[in-house]
Amino acid sequence: MKNYIKHNEWQIIEKGFDPHLNKISESIFSIGNGRMGQRANFEETYTGETLQGNYVAGVYYPDKTRVGWWKNGYPEYFAKVLNATNWIGLNITISGEVLDLNTSKVSEFTRVLDMKLGTLTRKFTVELANGNILKVEAIRFCSIVDDEAGVIKYSITPQNFDGKITVESSLDGDVKNQDSNYDEKFWNEITAKQEGDFALLTLETKKTAFWVSSAIYTAIFQDGNDLELSSSFANKEKYVSQNFEVDVKQNEAITIFKYAVNLSSENHEKDAIEVNAISKLKEVVAKGFKQMLAEQAAAWAAKWQNGDVIIECDVAAQQAIRFNIFQLHQTYTGEDARLNIGPKGFTGEKYGGSTYWDTEAYCLPFYLATAPQQVAENLLIYRYKHLEKAIENAEKLGFKNGAALYPMVTINGEECHNEWEITFEEIHRNGAIAFAIFNYIRYTGENKYLAEYGLEVLIGIARFWAQRVNWSIDKEKYVMLGVTGPNEYENNINNNWYTSTIATWCLKYTIEAIETVKQNDGSRLDEIVAKTKFNLVEEQKHWQDIIEKMFYPEDEKLGIFLQQDGYLDKEQVLVAALPAEDRPLNQKWSWDRILRSCFIKQADVLQGIYFFEEDYDLETIRRNYDFYEPRTVHESSLSPCVHAIIAAKLGDLDRAYEFYLRTSRLDLDDYNNDTEDGLHITSMAGTWLSVVEGFGGMRVKNNQLSLHPVLPKNWKSYSFKIGFRKAIVTVKFDGKKVSLSNESEQALNLNVFGKDEHLEANGTLEINS
Amino acid sequence: MKNYIKHNEWQIIEKGFDPHLNKISESIFSIGNGRMGQRANFEETYTGETLQGNYVAGVYYPDKTRVGWWKNGYPEYFAKVLNATNWIGLNITISGEVLDLNTSKVSEFTRVLDMKLGTLTRKFTVELANGNILKVEAIRFCSIVDDEAGVIKYSITPQNFDGKITVESSLDGDVKNQDSNYDEKFWNEITAKQEGDFALLTLETKKTAFWVSSAIYTAIFQDGNDLELSSSFANKEKYVSQNFEVDVKQNEAITIFKYAVNLSSENHEKDAIEVNAISKLKEVVAKGFKQMLAEQAAAWAAKWQNGDVIIECDVAAQQAIRFNIFQLHQTYTGEDARLNIGPKGFTGEKYGGSTYWDTEAYCLPFYLATAPQQVAENLLIYRYKHLEKAIENAEKLGFKNGAALYPMVTINGEECHNEWEITFEEIHRNGAIAFAIFNYIRYTGENKYLAEYGLEVLIGIARFWAQRVNWSIDKEKYVMLGVTGPNEYENNINNNWYTSTIATWCLKYTIEAIETVKQNDGSRLDEIVAKTKFNLVEEQKHWQDIIEKMFYPEDEKLGIFLQQDGYLDKEQVLVAALPAEDRPLNQKWSWDRILRSCFIKQADVLQGIYFFEEDYDLETIRRNYDFYEPRTVHESSLSPCVHAIIAAKLGDLDRAYEFYLRTSRLDLDDYNNDTEDGLHITSMAGTWLSVVEGFGGMRVKNNQLSLHPVLPKNWKSYSFKIGFRKAIVTVKFDGKKVSLSNESEQALNLNVFGKDEHLEANGTLEINS
Repeated sequence: MKNYIKHNEWQIIEKGFDPHLNKISESIFSIGNGRMGQRANFEETYTGETLQGNYVAGVYYPDKTRVGWWKNGYPEYFAKVLNATNWIGLNITISGEVLDLNTSKVSEFTRVLDMKLGTLTRKFTVELANGNILKVEAIRFCSIVDDEAGVIKYSITPQNFDGKITVESSLDGDVKNQDSNYDEKFWNEITAKQEGDFALLTLETKKTAFWVSSAIYTAIFQDGNDLELSSSFANKEKYVSQNFEVDVKQNEAITIFKYAVNLSSENHEKDAIEVNAISKLKEVVAKGFKQMLAEQAAAWAAKWQNGDVIIECDVAAQQAIRFNIFQLHQTYTGEDARLNIGPKGFTGEKYGGSTYWDTEAYCLPFYLATAPQQVAENLLIYRYKHLEKAIENAEKLGFKNGAALYPMVTINGEECHNEWEITFEEIHRNGAIAFAIFNYIRYTGENKYLAEYGLEVLIGIARFWAQRVNWSIDKEKYVMLGVTGPNEYENNINNNWYTSTIATWCLKYTIEAIETVKQNDGSRLDEIVAKTKFNLVEEQKHWQDIIEKMFYPEDEKLGIFLQQDGYLDKEQVLVAALPAEDRPLNQKWSWDRILRSCFIKQADVLQGIYFFEEDYDLETIRRNYDFYEPRTVHESSLSPCVHAIIAAKLGDLDRAYEFYLRTSRLDLDDYNNDTEDGLHITSMAGTWLSVVEGFGGMRVKNNQLSLHPVLPKNWKSYSFKIGFRKAIVTVKFDGKKVSLSNESEQALNLNVFGKDEHLEANGTLEINS
Repeated sequence: MKNYIKHNEWQIIEKGFDPHLNKISESIFSIGNGRMGQRANFEETYTGETLQGNYVAGVYYPDKTRVGWWKNGYPEYFAKVLNATNWIGLNITISGEVLDLNTSKVSEFTRVLDMKLGTLTRKFTVELANGNILKVEAIRFCSIVDDEAGVIKYSITPQNFDGKITVESSLDGDVKNQDSNYDEKFWNEITAKQEGDFALLTLETKKTAFWVSSAIYTAIFQDGNDLELSSSFANKEKYVSQNFEVDVKQNEAITIFKYAVNLSSENHEKDAIEVNAISKLKEVVAKGFKQMLAEQAAAWAAKWQNGDVIIECDVAAQQAIRFNIFQLHQTYTGEDARLNIGPKGFTGEKYGGSTYWDTEAYCLPFYLATAPQQVAENLLIYRYKHLEKAIENAEKLGFKNGAALYPMVTINGEECHNEWEITFEEIHRNGAIAFAIFNYIRYTGENKYLAEYGLEVLIGIARFWAQRVNWSIDKEKYVMLGVTGPNEYENNINNNWYTSTIATWCLKYTIEAIETVKQNDGSRLDEIVAKTKFNLVEEQKHWQDIIEKMFYPEDEKLGIFLQQDGYLDKEQVLVAALPAEDRPLNQKWSWDRILRSCFIKQADVLQGIYFFEEDYDLETIRRNYDFYEPRTVHESSLSPCVHAIIAAKLGDLDRAYEFYLRTSRLDLDDYNNDTEDGLHITSMAGTWLSVVEGFGGMRVKNNQLSLHPVLPKNWKSYSFKIGFRKAIVTVKFDGKKVSLSNESEQALNLNVFGKDEHLEANGTLEINS
């Protein structure tokens, strides 16, 4: 755990330059706009430790799978988000010496991520080996208005010299993924050229043949005037640059403006992409830095207007929640149903793929409440589009008749991951995808998604579960063998309570969904039945039988659900008894030792209790929480938030607050010592959940919004805003009263502290706790 | 399954050349002498499909581990038996055209492995593209008398031409392992030179720095006379050759004699190795081909004299058992305790390593009965020498206080394998190593091994088991969680009956062994106690507690031991119901499907019943056999033999015979479609077991040899010879009577068909069944 980020409500601030922290900061200060994004690498040359990272949404490479021992069914490749053309490069040479923070004396260094503006700024003074001192101030952003464009303003002020500065403003496509399985580079060059004042570089990915066309325009100003310096064009393989020479004087700043665009063949025809790149670049150059920045600020203001969370009297907590929300919005804007939320977003390469069950279990509720409905719907449609592939995936594993198993990790619907215990066995992900459909409909109150898309997916998933269970002559029940639950510190277990619970829930919900579609639109049901060759009577009868005779492991004496068969055979030790030097277990213990211990990586039984809370009385929830939480090591970023929500519900506010801080400052404080690889983007939605569902007690019950706020003891108040069924409601709680304010034309019946209330359109309401 | 090998009692014969079968034949016709060995590659150039393979015992390379997802505790490298200098090369050019069976018309091709002589011969007629026809007859062997030497006699007879033949007789060290993880070559050149009439090549392995020095001498004869042709020496990187030009005439044969030696730095100081190589080569050249062949035949005759199995009226069965015995003797001679029996011997690269639990469970009994006692003892001492490494290995997994876990796969005592479910969890191997000590002492009747070596190993193993179990508050028993049994089609299971059974057996046997050593040599026990820091009272008390309170899964209704907790939750289907196209499961089903099915790869519960047969009554054995065998797919080469032995014991002779044929002809008939990778050397010992322990009913009971022969219906009789406690006994059974003949000075009390008998020194005995 580190603690070097300064606490501030709207900014992430680093003061002083420590090269050992640089890769962590590169992750934390990442910027993006949902279409492209990058780590906070330096514009100028840096020979110290760095992880270069520029990413373009939807552009991936199927890297040949690396495996020690091949198992039947493994996918041939692992689709990876690609490190793409680096467009920020400004190689600065002063009197023949390259500006490089690794070889110079750096002072007054600050790096700031401004979450109100969506900008990354850096300021520093540097003394070169040749004695020249200069001040640099750099600001850049990926525009969320022009989402194919980014811009840099880079000012240099000589402090003690007059002289010549050369500027090499580049597009560098000769990049590679650090996690390349066979040390291969993934790009080929298509075009590298100068066109007027613009330099252009078009690359193609190997195998997948995506094109990304990047173009830059560079201009150098002094005193607000374009020096109109002519540049020379240079190029080498997968690299172009615009090179300038500038005469500089002591204390007189020069300012480099660099405009860049990145267009992908996902959005442009290949034969038009270069023309479009040039024209897009012209557009933003014409707009100019100032206007782009103003638009950026306005667009971010709108995002905050809809989705801010305000915490009074706890700057660390305030900064953290905003950082989480900010990064989520940088990663996914919800405009394109082909995209999804990668576990590292645009902040690193690790884990490849772009979609895990995190999307459905954690991210969907965040976007449901804070973004237009279309955003959440696009997340669902993404999976709808992959249904065919999910059916093929299940067929590879021996399933039939349209059973669908969604992949553990995917970009294009095909499975990427290759650990048998995860790929083939961590099948609860299928349940989360069904649950997301339920959650979406519960939240929006709109059933029509079911008929249009949802039911087909549900039928595929239900068929999978119906084939995945088997009848045990021993237990005289249906059992579910050989699974890995959310707690990945158990593999190939039998009757994981969570998986079995969500499996039968899927069967029940699919039966309900069939009934709903039948009621609303019988002919659409006929269509679906025909398309899926669904046997309405026989298949539902079989599902019903499974629902009635499913086995769930429990311990009556302890009054708890058992994580799996035999869990109580394990030596029962609490996390509190673990020596500090054994933590984290996944770095200190061999895998078999982890597996046979009782220690839990992340919510498992409690994940089920979180999803299906209404099915369990408070005492059952408490017994399970009291049993499992002390055995949980929270070595997944997805763990603390679920525990925070349940702890808050059970009135264990101190623990809830502890979990909240852990989830919200996970990356800011580098809690797991892995932030340098990139940020834990999907778990950031969990942070939001732990405020809104945890402290706010927000639920949807009986088709209504329900609130039951509690206040952590060192907060004065907190407020959050949610969109619910066309109403937009700000909820504020100060420990004594809930203040509600409706900023929409939609009146709302809701439930607060267990009592029904009515909130007028544009009205306000105060309710004492 | 193939069926192209001709049946013959003493020879393995291939007739006709089919390039598609060549890699299979290269494996089957492999030759070796325990010190070096090779696949049956052609001497002349062959551009068709081939797997070149020459191996030198004890010379290995630690290839960097390849893994998809790293798990804590994995070893950094995988030690591989190395493809070494190819010494057989004779590149023949006739009138400018290279002799190459891939590009010529081949007729009258035969390949013969003569198991009486230990030779590989090949004869063929070939018509080159240029119309030249020649007959070739080649014979070669690795001498078991001069075990660093090999020799080739290669005759060429022009059929329709006079002309010029060039002969390039080479040592080619520019070889690589097909299974190299990173496509790396493992050798560097030290020396390549001509010395008098000899060419010499010395190579060094990367990382491990083994030296192998090879030298050749080539001479060309006609009509029995050395033509005394002078050769020219050629060399390129890691390659030397002696090149000749010969004038040949129609119908006049020329004969090339090529003598080669391979010396390893395991047996020679590096600074003497080249001198020794030259001097060894001089020695064999002086001896000459004829004498070497005569010595080879005599040495093999001695081996057969001690260990032949004779089957009357079943040539396929006779050929098969001899083939298995022959290959075992080619692989391991037992003279060097640093060596062991690799799963592919000298016949292929696959699986790397050289030692699996196969050695203890299957091979040891074969060598105990058919070779001098020292051979079996060396197999045990091999593990004794690795005890320190086994303790380190256990420490890596969190065990303490001298607990030892022997590796799953090893060459030098360090673990090589890296599948967590095998490496960390298939721990029953530890039991097999203890059982081998017990078996050795039971067989030889000599306890002194215990005090000298065995007890230290047993204490390490017992300590491992004592730490590996844990107390279940649920079962109020000790349990053994997270293991993989011999049936590798189950991973990470709890309470595998076999593993738990052998674990407590180890504890019991170690307690007995401590008592034995105490009785025989109290001061040696004191030494061991001091060396191992053994707490005689406390540790044994704890072991006793585990012995008394261990949990073993059983099903009372079925009257069987359960393979593991929850086995009866699986869908119970029999192998007979599996569609043919689903077999073998490991090539057709995804891994999760295999895991959750009830199908068994190889004997698991039955392995335990085989080891501890005396603990179970016949009905218990029958119930378990009747339950488990029909669920067993025998997809391990080690499976059929154990089933053959139990089936024979239960009187199920037809099944026993079926299993016998399957195990014995596994490679000859390419049963599993994988013989091209190399032979299944260790399972060949199982073949011998299925005759001697299966049909012969041979056991050691109450310190006596015990026999209970049965006769498969299509055999007239069979006989085998065993050495037991200084007696050498031939056992023959013709279905009616057992004929025993003692070829030693040691009289023997033994038990036949349940009755005590006495066999005089050099006496014979006939007993009716």
